[in-house]
Amino acid sequence: MLPDNVFITLADIEAARDRIAPFVRRTPVLTSDLLDEATGGRLFFKCENLQQIGAFKARGACNAVLSLTDAEAARGVATHSSGNHGSAVAYAARLRGIVAHVVMPDGVARPKAAQVERLGARITYCAPNQAAREAETARIVAETGAALIHPFDNLQVMAGQGTAALELIEDAGPLDLVMTPIGGGGLISGVSTAVRAKLPAARMVGAEPAGADDAARSFASGRLEPMDHPNTIADGLRAGLSPATFAHIRRNVDDVVTVSEAAIVEAMRALWETLKVVVEPSAAVPYAAILEGKVDARGKRVGVVLTGGNIDLDRLPWIRP
Amino acid sequence: MLPDNVFITLADIEAARDRIAPFVRRTPVLTSDLLDEATGGRLFFKCENLQQIGAFKARGACNAVLSLTDAEAARGVATHSSGNHGSAVAYAARLRGIVAHVVMPDGVARPKAAQVERLGARITYCAPNQAAREAETARIVAETGAALIHPFDNLQVMAGQGTAALELIEDAGPLDLVMTPIGGGGLISGVSTAVRAKLPAARMVGAEPAGADDAARSFASGRLEPMDHPNTIADGLRAGLSPATFAHIRRNVDDVVTVSEAAIVEAMRALWETLKVVVEPSAAVPYAAILEGKVDARGKRVGVVLTGGNIDLDRLPWIRP
Repeated sequence: MLPDNVFITLADIEAARDRIAPFVRRTPVLTSDLLDEATGGRLFFKCENLQQIGAFKARGACNAVLSLTDAEAARGVATHSSGNHGSAVAYAARLRGIVAHVVMPDGVARPKAAQVERLGARITYCAPNQAAREAETARIVAETGAALIHPFDNLQVMAGQGTAALELIEDAGPLDLVMTPIGGGGLISGVSTAVRAKLPAARMVGAEPAGADDAARSFASGRLEPMDHPNTIADGLRAGLSPATFAHIRRNVDDVVTVSEAAIVEAMRALWETLKVVVEPSAAVPYAAILEGKVDARGKRVGVVLTGGNIDLDRLPWIRP
Repeated sequence: MLPDNVFITLADIEAARDRIAPFVRRTPVLTSDLLDEATGGRLFFKCENLQQIGAFKARGACNAVLSLTDAEAARGVATHSSGNHGSAVAYAARLRGIVAHVVMPDGVARPKAAQVERLGARITYCAPNQAAREAETARIVAETGAALIHPFDNLQVMAGQGTAALELIEDAGPLDLVMTPIGGGGLISGVSTAVRAKLPAARMVGAEPAGADDAARSFASGRLEPMDHPNTIADGLRAGLSPATFAHIRRNVDDVVTVSEAAIVEAMRALWETLKVVVEPSAAVPYAAILEGKVDARGKRVGVVLTGGNIDLDRLPWIRP
């Protein structure tokens, strides 16, 4: 694990932006008068669901894989992921022409595994818990010499994720509040670093499902609390923080709020009906926090990162089977 | 009906662009390496599914409604529409603070009617055929003095739709081929005028469902053929051409191709899985033509207008009930 006294900087994020620019999309920032009327704020949605591989994870993975030396890259890369980071590493490895090993939990959503396969990575399935994933990945790294591209506990990954905030701020202009979901904390580590540097007066708020609230508990107690038995539809947010991402959150983030499962589903549906974007449950969590009154958007210019759109449309959570 | 010897010009489209700029989105142009590999071309998708009201129709309606004099506007506007144009007129009328009357066919998709209502328009339902729609709209115009904003047989509407092509060409750069679907022909009238002026060497191709192929038959025969009993999932393409839109097609369009219903559904699904955009069946028709081999994209830079995304996600056509 990374130490908790090393922080990424704006310069790291700007270097990442230049490194990954040819390989990621500058995603649109969408607004909706209807959502503004409903919330009383002016909301700017950074549509990373339209990013390469359908999620912001392409940014961090590209930055990390493209930062490897040629000698390191020649032995390939490995990671574990519930889906989007696996696709992102596969995508980045394909760009670089190297092998990607992706460890995925049994029962992972079908479209996520299919996308990893389509991108040419080698998938290894394991039991659906953090320990099994890490052990299987460690075995592959030991056997092949592949470079581990951790989904969030990696400074290059955090810096890559932060590039989404640079674009959001450029396109939306000054913001009073910026929100992201929190899973392992890689995205908010990067985004909050960019926000602190570019918009010193803005509030930075993370949002989590109540059923996977390790970041909220850790933020409240000041100690890294374990994630036990996460229980949420937001499958991208079931990972727990690392010491390094928790340190970034403590330094840069003003609040961490939690939301109900019902609000997540309601937010997904509202974003579809107004913005015409389909996002995965994890991506709907910040807007769910506004819907549920956990964050007050009234009178504020609010930037929200819509993190991803990899969902099985055949199984939308608001449709009863 | 408009005469068939009056044509819109690039200047009309540029004036429309300036008039509507504050009120419509500059939608993103997305590309996908996977789709390029599948088709052998370089495809640029203009995402009008992310436009205000979820369809390019916002462009034409805004241009027409904002072009009215204050005296004309004061009596309101009226139109008939299977959905998207109705929302677009409601949206434009709300911007201008005037009443919109929208005539919709019985059985119209629920989300389309709901959106028109949410935008504050007055809906009148009628029998689901062109004659009933036109008669009901004429009655409202006679009673209220509202200005008729025809969905396609209106030069300001055509010019507004053409603004999508100006943006597509600016963002994608030179194109060898540009494609749109054809319903009543308003979109292709505007887009083809812009393409002829900006990209004189490019091919301009329209695509239709085989079950609503009046434009293809008219293009082949050189006479305006009637649309009888359209039978297609692409509910936005069931209208027939007008003399004016047919004249624009004859002047500006190189070919009109038709596609099967199965290809439309396959194209919708492929666009979702690769671009992460959900489009309505009508919008998938040009890509369906490439999938089905009706248009050869190999080695070409191809611009495709994805016309709209107003679909009921609870009833996706690739899911058996």
